[in-house]
Amino acid sequence: MQTIKTIAELRTIIQSARTAGKSVGYVATMGFLHEGHMHLVRAARSEHDVVVASIFVNPLQFGPGEDYEDYPRDLAKDQALLEQNGCDVLFAPSVEEMYPQPMATFVEVPELSTGLCGRSRPTHFRGVATVVCKLFNIVQPDAAYFGQKDGQQVAVIRRMVADLNIPVRIVAVPIVREDDGLARSSRNIYLTDEHRLHATVLHRALETAVDAISSGERSGSTVARLMAEQISSEPGVKLDYAEVVNATSLEPVEDLQGDIMLAVAAYVGKARLIDNVPLTVESAVVSV
Amino acid sequence: MQTIKTIAELRTIIQSARTAGKSVGYVATMGFLHEGHMHLVRAARSEHDVVVASIFVNPLQFGPGEDYEDYPRDLAKDQALLEQNGCDVLFAPSVEEMYPQPMATFVEVPELSTGLCGRSRPTHFRGVATVVCKLFNIVQPDAAYFGQKDGQQVAVIRRMVADLNIPVRIVAVPIVREDDGLARSSRNIYLTDEHRLHATVLHRALETAVDAISSGERSGSTVARLMAEQISSEPGVKLDYAEVVNATSLEPVEDLQGDIMLAVAAYVGKARLIDNVPLTVESAVVSV
Repeated sequence: MQTIKTIAELRTIIQSARTAGKSVGYVATMGFLHEGHMHLVRAARSEHDVVVASIFVNPLQFGPGEDYEDYPRDLAKDQALLEQNGCDVLFAPSVEEMYPQPMATFVEVPELSTGLCGRSRPTHFRGVATVVCKLFNIVQPDAAYFGQKDGQQVAVIRRMVADLNIPVRIVAVPIVREDDGLARSSRNIYLTDEHRLHATVLHRALETAVDAISSGERSGSTVARLMAEQISSEPGVKLDYAEVVNATSLEPVEDLQGDIMLAVAAYVGKARLIDNVPLTVESAVVSV
Repeated sequence: MQTIKTIAELRTIIQSARTAGKSVGYVATMGFLHEGHMHLVRAARSEHDVVVASIFVNPLQFGPGEDYEDYPRDLAKDQALLEQNGCDVLFAPSVEEMYPQPMATFVEVPELSTGLCGRSRPTHFRGVATVVCKLFNIVQPDAAYFGQKDGQQVAVIRRMVADLNIPVRIVAVPIVREDDGLARSSRNIYLTDEHRLHATVLHRALETAVDAISSGERSGSTVARLMAEQISSEPGVKLDYAEVVNATSLEPVEDLQGDIMLAVAAYVGKARLIDNVPLTVESAVVSV
């Protein structure tokens, strides 16, 4: 695996691959990689000639007082994991390489960016959409693989790609969980042993909601309240949100029907954790 | 010359050109083409294997009460002109093809979009940046040719391309003028014979400004006032703005030095006309 630091070098590599008629699969990450990321890399590997991953902790998607400075980093371990899982090229640019001058251009998807995580992170998805647009223009992949764990991010990127005619196929890869159900996240490193036990409440609340819907509950607000109550009653956990939204528009839905997403976020100790379950609700059958 | 209406068909043509190792030059227009556009086409023709032009009157860049509905259209004449000047492919999509659903994604360059024309057209450059980003993702040219007549547009697009790492070289082609100095514009069709005579005041005011700077004037506000006074005193002409700005940031400059742009806009009868002169001011020498 090659590790590339500059845009110019990466463009040369991609250009050679293209000239040779090779397809390119891409995984964008902020590093401190875990099994969730490896599922993305292996999905890309199974479908493309060349697999590119990037590691870039993007300052533009962190708000003031968020964990940009503290965000965990371990390049050597990341390189080893990526190589073991079949990545060909790691693009790991500096902040100066990605932002040589203050940004004056922003890509925004306001309708999908103000609810859910956008309420407590008002500039986050603008930062995500802008950097992903940049990275797509640099890597120019055929397909890009994102974790469903960041469900709102997937929806924002899908909409950006559709609206701006970006020629990249977006693939959402299912959430990878620990044995006790906690969704894999680089931010799980922030959890103490005690907080780690309570953190599973996000997953447990989602299971409660799925059970309720499977048993026939069709009121979005009732399902949302079930999840909120369960998370709020967990010691050491502070609810951010618990919502039932349309999977594409991310708008809250009351009559549960079609493609929806159950989405929760909570502060557990120092960590802000998120989790979700995408569901298709049909008249009688629920498929997860 | 082929005329293509759908994105899918255009992508197929571009893909074949790419596979054959051909370079692509692109001219984005709103149609009702004139000699200014033909300079763009010929510039693209002289540097590329394949020349693509687009005609799309983009609703997103017109404000309420502007001339979207009335904007002049003449596809048959445009096709003939493009063919005569060496265009290979005309992309002429419908509004439904470009905007199959309401847009939720916007590309914005706010710092460069609020001054000059942005003051009277507050959503214009968001519409321009967004549609040009879409068109670049559809055509994927090596280079794109824009008229310097829309000087602020050129600056906005250059900044967007740099900030978002869009792999397209931007070429600004000098303004093409009528014999009496009026900048060529599709909107000149709105002028009556009498207004047509007065419309040359935009060019005359810019010449006055260039003369003053050539004679040693180095105060931006003085030069701007000279232009404003000359335009305001012309019968039938209502000044919108007359400014001296940095060529890259578009911020007003007082001490004239380096790359600047003299920019004017005025309402002449039914038409809103713009014109500009890019200049490099050195200690003693002025190069236009």
